[in-house]
Amino acid sequence: MNIAILLYPDMTALDAIGPYEVLARLPEARVQFVAEQRGPVKTDTGFLGLLADYAISEITQADILLVPGGPGDEAVRNNAKLLDWVREIHTNTRFTTSVCSGSLILGAAGLLKGLRATTHWTRLEVLREFGAEPTEERVVEQGKVVTAAGVSSGIDMGLRLAQKISGDDIAQAIQLGLEYDPQPPFDVGSPAKAPPHVAELVRTAMR
Amino acid sequence: MNIAILLYPDMTALDAIGPYEVLARLPEARVQFVAEQRGPVKTDTGFLGLLADYAISEITQADILLVPGGPGDEAVRNNAKLLDWVREIHTNTRFTTSVCSGSLILGAAGLLKGLRATTHWTRLEVLREFGAEPTEERVVEQGKVVTAAGVSSGIDMGLRLAQKISGDDIAQAIQLGLEYDPQPPFDVGSPAKAPPHVAELVRTAMR
Repeated sequence: MNIAILLYPDMTALDAIGPYEVLARLPEARVQFVAEQRGPVKTDTGFLGLLADYAISEITQADILLVPGGPGDEAVRNNAKLLDWVREIHTNTRFTTSVCSGSLILGAAGLLKGLRATTHWTRLEVLREFGAEPTEERVVEQGKVVTAAGVSSGIDMGLRLAQKISGDDIAQAIQLGLEYDPQPPFDVGSPAKAPPHVAELVRTAMR
Repeated sequence: MNIAILLYPDMTALDAIGPYEVLARLPEARVQFVAEQRGPVKTDTGFLGLLADYAISEITQADILLVPGGPGDEAVRNNAKLLDWVREIHTNTRFTTSVCSGSLILGAAGLLKGLRATTHWTRLEVLREFGAEPTEERVVEQGKVVTAAGVSSGIDMGLRLAQKISGDDIAQAIQLGLEYDPQPPFDVGSPAKAPPHVAELVRTAMR
């Protein structure tokens, strides 16, 4: 099972690494990190480089395509070569997936027309530009197109995909192996739960 | 605020990237990924390279030291040069931290003597070899030494550190920015919650 994860400058690392850490542990999984060109890709903080072992020209098929989000999504949405690649890979995937604003890239590639979808909570309305219907669910399944909400939601999406692909025992073993028993110090991880002034801090920072 | 994250071959990526994604968003944060030598470091699945922008010889101070875990921990525990570096950095940190079996590296460096500590649930008893007292808490604070349990627990540790360093508003804004509102498909993320046959699957896989 080939899992292609798209890397691009100014992406958010956890969008990719969360689901990667789950999916790489599926039986027979082979994960391929792919970017427009091979080599290091600097993520959005400027502090971390992830290595793309493959150029898009080298990857013509994937069972799972994962598109992460991040401030760099806009450049990808304006890059015809990358959008062509996303569309081409999508034609033969078992699952085409995104985390955070990665769904805006799927949208720009024309893959979300008429579908419910999600993205980072600050960007939900942008989905309408691509003919998608924004929803506030954390993981949204529409046939083979699966979109997840902001950043950390990719871990939950990864486990859902693991369950669909390999069943409950394997998915649960992966969750236990990663000791994913979340205990955040606060319960403020969605705009519905966070104090309004905290939500405003985030909106300001992301403008 | 300088945050040094140690990279080494066969580490588990999410151990580092989970807390990195939180801590990099603190005001004035500068994250430095550091390894024995500069350059790409292959993580434990064999599918992902992380880039170390710094060699340990270039980093002589950090406010936060973060040591991730993974199957490569044993080689680090037998690498006197790396252990010397960990000890040296520790002398002037504000927080010395680990995720998963990273605590065994702190232990091998002699930093856990007489302290309560945690690690991946399959490795808890190993902590005793280093004079530490294993506990099953997800994040264990002992003065400036903070250890977290398996893999994904680093996100929770990162948020706790964010709260201590920058207060509730900033920590909550980071949590909301990362949309960390966990909704795993199962509630099996600790050995106490998982079915015994699932725990056995994990134990077998990690032997």
